[in-house]
This record gives sequence, structure tokens and C-alpha cells, in this order.
Amino acid sequence: MVYLTRSEHFNAAHRLFNPGWSYEKNEEVFGKCANENWHGHNYELLVTVKGNPDPDTGFLFDVKKLSLIIRQHIIERMDHHNLNLDVDFMKDKMCSTENLAMGIWEQLAPHLPAGVQLHCVKLYETPRIYVEYFGR
Amino acid sequence: MVYLTRSEHFNAAHRLFNPGWSYEKNEEVFGKCANENWHGHNYELLVTVKGNPDPDTGFLFDVKKLSLIIRQHIIERMDHHNLNLDVDFMKDKMCSTENLAMGIWEQLAPHLPAGVQLHCVKLYETPRIYVEYFGR
Amino acid sequence: MVYLTRSEHFNAAHRLFNPGWSYEKNEEVFGKCANENWHGHNYELLVTVKGNPDPDTGFLFDVKKLSLIIRQHIIERMDHHNLNLDVDFMKDKMCSTENLAMGIWEQLAPHLPAGVQLHCVKLYETPRIYVEYFGR
Amino acid sequence: MVYLTRSEHFNAAHRLFNPGWSYEKNEEVFGKCANENWHGHNYELLVTVKGNPDPDTGFLFDVKKLSLIIRQHIIERMDHHNLNLDVDFMKDKMCSTENLAMGIWEQLAPHLPAGVQLHCVKLYETPRIYVEYFGR
Amino acid sequence: MVYLTRSEHFNAAHRLFNPGWSYEKNEEVFGKCANENWHGHNYELLVTVKGNPDPDTGFLFDVKKLSLIIRQHIIERMDHHNLNLDVDFMKDKMCSTENLAMGIWEQLAPHLPAGVQLHCVKLYETPRIYVEYFGR
Amino acid sequence: MVYLTRSEHFNAAHRLFNPGWSYEKNEEVFGKCANENWHGHNYELLVTVKGNPDPDTGFLFDVKKLSLIIRQHIIERMDHHNLNLDVDFMKDKMCSTENLAMGIWEQLAPHLPAGVQLHCVKLYETPRIYVEYFGR
Repeated sequence: MVYLTRSEHFNAAHRLFNPGWSYEKNEEVFGKCANENWHGHNYELLVTVKGNPDPDTGFLFDVKKLSLIIRQHIIERMDHHNLNLDVDFMKDKMCSTENLAMGIWEQLAPHLPAGVQLHCVKLYETPRIYVEYFGR
Repeated sequence: MVYLTRSEHFNAAHRLFNPGWSYEKNEEVFGKCANENWHGHNYELLVTVKGNPDPDTGFLFDVKKLSLIIRQHIIERMDHHNLNLDVDFMKDKMCSTENLAMGIWEQLAPHLPAGVQLHCVKLYETPRIYVEYFGR
Repeated sequence: MVYLTRSEHFNAAHRLFNPGWSYEKNEEVFGKCANENWHGHNYELLVTVKGNPDPDTGFLFDVKKLSLIIRQHIIERMDHHNLNLDVDFMKDKMCSTENLAMGIWEQLAPHLPAGVQLHCVKLYETPRIYVEYFGR
Repeated sequence: MVYLTRSEHFNAAHRLFNPGWSYEKNEEVFGKCANENWHGHNYELLVTVKGNPDPDTGFLFDVKKLSLIIRQHIIERMDHHNLNLDVDFMKDKMCSTENLAMGIWEQLAPHLPAGVQLHCVKLYETPRIYVEYFGR
Repeated sequence: MVYLTRSEHFNAAHRLFNPGWSYEKNEEVFGKCANENWHGHNYELLVTVKGNPDPDTGFLFDVKKLSLIIRQHIIERMDHHNLNLDVDFMKDKMCSTENLAMGIWEQLAPHLPAGVQLHCVKLYETPRIYVEYFGR
Repeated sequence: MVYLTRSEHFNAAHRLFNPGWSYEKNEEVFGKCANENWHGHNYELLVTVKGNPDPDTGFLFDVKKLSLIIRQHIIERMDHHNLNLDVDFMKDKMCSTENLAMGIWEQLAPHLPAGVQLHCVKLYETPRIYVEYFGR
């Protein structure tokens, strides 16, 4: 079994704000991340799949196809968007990096072909902060 | 003469939108960068100063002081903010990387001590796009 | 379960030298790393914790708190110090990257709150050499 | 148990082409990667070994020796070469990143000393594409 | 005046070989770079233009248009190609990084609009080697 | 005229301490950089030369020769050393990045062949701090 990773990126606005809490509690817990006028990030997304290479191609999976799946199901919906307002699968969820990574996993997993398993979604919020999710 | 550079970063939301134009013209010119719900970036800011080192310290300028000046006059006003709505010196300007770099120059230049000249403001919008401004 | 990583750095001097060996044997085994006048590195430290996100915040753990714990228990004791002479938890140990990673684990683990498990300490000695320790 | 990683690089030409297929099928499957005049990459190779540190040195394995083993058995045979034509252990295999990572594992594993286990071969074809192989 | 830089990349094979010299002299001067079966690189290309921002857009030049010009005139002709055999503007020239940077300048300069001057072509052959050309 | 840059690195210990000042004044000016037990860095050194390419080779200067000159005259004397104690050309100078860059320039300049001019010495002390020196 080998593991193949493709990196893509998207630029998005977001905000950490729990609507069930007061404005003051949001400020206290999330600090400047709660700014009502939003802030944003260059997110770097690494998607790892695993399986056995095809002897005819040497490929576990054609990395150009993997890139297309990520672009179609994730990048087009998140890039240059507001993660809280514009992304259907984040509706009613906190837009933390943890929840984003788990949400991306759920969007990608159904679109991989037989024999190619999703192994990890790794999402950098900044060059110094990232989350990994392995599906359970 | 030597040149000393310090890098700092800030995360911010912005939007490219000319209020003197129709929504359609903004869409045509700026594409997804005009998204009314904003998007954002991890901006990387490199500030270069020039001058002659002090023989007693070997420093052109104490890089910790340079960092404090950048943080006080730029990072605290831009980090986790909306560049269009929250940053006074960008009011009534397009929030392009070009204008941001020129605006940052104007904020920083008055705060450097005698003998330390601002040489360059370099601003990365993404790892693949940056602007440099040398003050004229 | 998700995994959250925060990166911090420190600059330190060190030396590889086994006091139970002759000077010649140290030279033979450690080469220039045994230089009696020390050398040093920009260490890059990545700390990964794991657990389940809190539904109210979307956070496994507030990454600013993780950063504070790393700074208080590691960075303040190692940054701009001599790892052999100044760091209490490295006393009487070889200052290899392996031992540093294991020592950092022991310092950090007791300070994480319930529900947040330390998963990995990854320490870069140079951009081309790193050690990972998973606690056993 | 600790994990130690050393990074090395090599620059090489290659081509994706299955000689059992028609020229047209190769074009269809591999696109521009099938170009008969070759293309190439700066490959970045990360080799991770695992084991217990020696109490006398603090080393799992002397990283300079690990580097020498990688250079002797991999870099000298692959750097500035054509992976399809010049590298004996890739003869009659597709030169995909997957097969390269698995081939490198087989070349390295026999040369590690007792107590030092090969854990992972990670090979970057470009900064955005990499493969990991853990030996089974 | 501001300076705007866009980075693009291409993967290509090449070889350093002077056909006016003997095989032995080529080996002596170029070493393994003369390998008759080629080698290759992930080239990173940074193109800098300069001029004054348009007050209506805040742009010196729309960076998406700059990217398209680079892709049309450079990347499509060089990516996944053999620089010695496949690239018309390198015919009868040594494929050194110096000559590549100068050749790229000549291809790009005629395609920039009025008011946008080409300032620099910077080409990385490896992460540790690059050439800059300023047009004269 | 083209500009060619080669990057090399060295790991060294140093300390900022002016022997003409009291211990207290050193603490006040240099803070933790004055630690009497030293600290250290992974220095990254970029050396840029300029000139005209040779039509026979396409080279301004053989980058392997440039690398050898840097290694012989700089890296061998600084790598794994104490910059204050072990490096002859820093004797009686403050070991600031500014002075290091100027000192390296003076060591390198005499060793470049005719037709190859030293253009810039750029020295990173950390990934966020660097100095450039252009020889005057």
C-alpha cells in the first residue's frame, strides 16, 4: 500500500462566532477571531489517498484526477468565499479549522473511485497551525 | 550601507470592489475577488530598512525595535481585520496589494529613527503573488 | 478524533560531547558537532495534540492556549540558551535532537488539560533533519 | 522509540510511457507526461528510520551516516540521470512516484544497521505532489 | 512606481552540452550535467513588472492576466518538455539557467500592455540556485 | 548582464556582547542575545554574482565553482563554530548579522575570477530576519 498526497489552496474569509452566546462571551473565547467584519486566510489543503498502484500505469491514482476532484468539490466552493456565509456544508457549524477539515473529508470521500481510500485531510490555516483528520 | 529586513504577518479579509462602478462591471473586472461576502489572505509583510551599522552594537537598527514598530503601526491595525472596513488608512482606496503596500509605507516611514531609512515594503498576498514598493 | 499542530521556534547553542569519553573519542564520534566552543541552530518545534472538538467552539483545543503552554514550558527555557548548560531537564543527557524531543514531551505532557492528549513532538534541528517522538 | 528523518534531493529526467500500449493510449492516459523527449523534476527524498537512542550518543542513528547511505545507494544512482534509462532498479517498471518510492525502499532497507528500522520513504515529485511508502 | 511579481512553475528535462566540443571536453566542463540521457528540474519562474497602479482598480496590472501571459508564452512551451529539443527559442543556445532567463525575457516583453514594463525574470533551477535578468 | 545566486548554510553559536560595556548595559541593549552561555542559529547564506555569460558554456560562472569558493572561504570557517571565538575575521567585531554579512563579503570578493563581480551577500539569521550587503 502506498500513500499519495496532493496539495491545493484556497483563500477565504471566516469568523469564529457562536450565535448561541452573547457578543461578550464570543469576544472572551475567540478574541479577535470573532471580529464581526471577518478576517481571512490562505488555506493550504493536503489530501492523502491510499491503495495499491496499478501495474499498467504505476499510479495509485492519477494525481491530475485527484486534483480535479478536490477542485470541483472543495476549491470551487470555498475559494474566494466566506466560509460562514457561502459554504453549504459549513452551515450551522463553527468555522474552526477542525470542523473545516472534517467537513472537507465528508465532501471528498464519496467521489473517490473503488480501490482508492481517503486517508487524511490536512488543512493549514496559517503556516504555523494545521489540523489533520483521518475519518474517525 | 547595509539593508536589514524583518518579516511579519497578518490575516485579514478584503474585497476588490469599486463603488463608482456597477455590480456587473465589478464582477467583470475583479471576478471572484469582488465577492460581496469577502474573502481573505495570510499576508506576509517584509520591511527593509537601510543605513550604517552602529560600531558599538553592530546593528543598523535593533531588529526587535523594528518588529515592535511594524506590530504597533501595521499588524495591530490590520491583523484579524477587514481591510476595506476596519483600516483607517485604506478608507476610500481600492484594497489591492499595490495600494496596501503603498499605504503601509506611509504608515511606517514617520516612525523610523534618524539614520534608519525605509527602503522597501514587500507584501505577499499569496505565496505566488507579491508587490514591492520603494517609496516613489 | 482530530489532530491539531502548532509550530514554534527557538534559537539555541549546543554541543555533542560525552563526558565519559576521551576528547579524541568525542571528536571521532561527533566530529565538528563536538566543538568545545559550541555551535547552534534555529530549532523548529511542532507539537501535535489529539482529541474531539468541543461542539460550542469547534476547537479540539484553543491553539492560542496551546501556543502559550509551549512558550511557557519550552520556549522560555530553551530560546537563546545553551541547551547543555542552561536547560535543567537536559542536565546529564546528551543534547541530541532525539533526546531533546523526548525531553520536550515530558515537559509538555503534564500541562495539557483533560481531553487533550499529546500525540507527537516533532523537532527540526535543520531544515533537512528532524526527529518525531510519540511518547513511547 | 523515536523517528529520525533526513532529507536529500536529486534532479532527474523521466517519462511515463507503457511500452505495451499504443502511442495514442499513452498520450490519452499520461498526457504531456508521456512526451517522448522526456521532462524532469527536482525530487525531494525524506527517509525516516525508527528505533531507540543509544544512551552514549543520544543518537538513534548518526544522521551523517544515514545521509551517506542515502547518497551512496540512491542519490549517486538517480541524480542527474534519466530514471527510465539509467537506473537499474527501475528497469521494466513505470517511473511513477509510487514505484520510485517503493524502489528506493528496497534499495535502502538492506543497508541499515541492526536496531535501525526503515520506517518511511517520502518522495516529492513537485512541491505539491508526494508519495509515502511504509514497506508493505 | 510599484513592482508586482507572479510566480509560475514548469517541469522540464535538459542537458548542458556544447556540440562544438568533444564528448570529453563536455564531460570535463559540465560533469554530470552533460549526461546524454538528460536530467531535469522543477523550474520556478518569478516575473516582475513595474509601473503605476490604475486608480480605478488599484492594480498595476491584473495578476490573473499576467499569469495568463506567462502561461501562454512560457509555461505551455516549456512545461513537461525537453528544453534542448522542444523549445524553439532555445534552439542553438546552451540551456543554462542564465540563457533560459534571458530567453524567457525576450518572449515575455512584447506581450505586456502599455504602461506595464517588464522589470525582472528570476528563474530557480533548484531551491538553492537562481538567476535574475533585468533586460540589459 | 545577469545575476547568479547560490545558497549555502552553516550552523553556528554566537553572542551579542560589547566588552567595553558593563554586564548590565549589555543585558539592557541586547537582552537574551547577550546570554553568556551563547545561543545559535542555522544561518542561510545567499551569494549573488553578476556579469555576462560565456557563449561557450552559457554560464556567467560555474555554480559548482561558486559553491566551492563559498564553502572553502566561509562555510568551513563558520559552520559548527562559535562566531565570536573561532572565526578570525570576526575578531574584535560585534557578531551582528550586519557585521557578519560585511565580513563575508570581504572574505569572498578576492576569490572571484575576472569578469565575475560580487553583487550581494544576503544572510538569514532566522527565517524572518536577514541582512543584505552590496559592498559599499
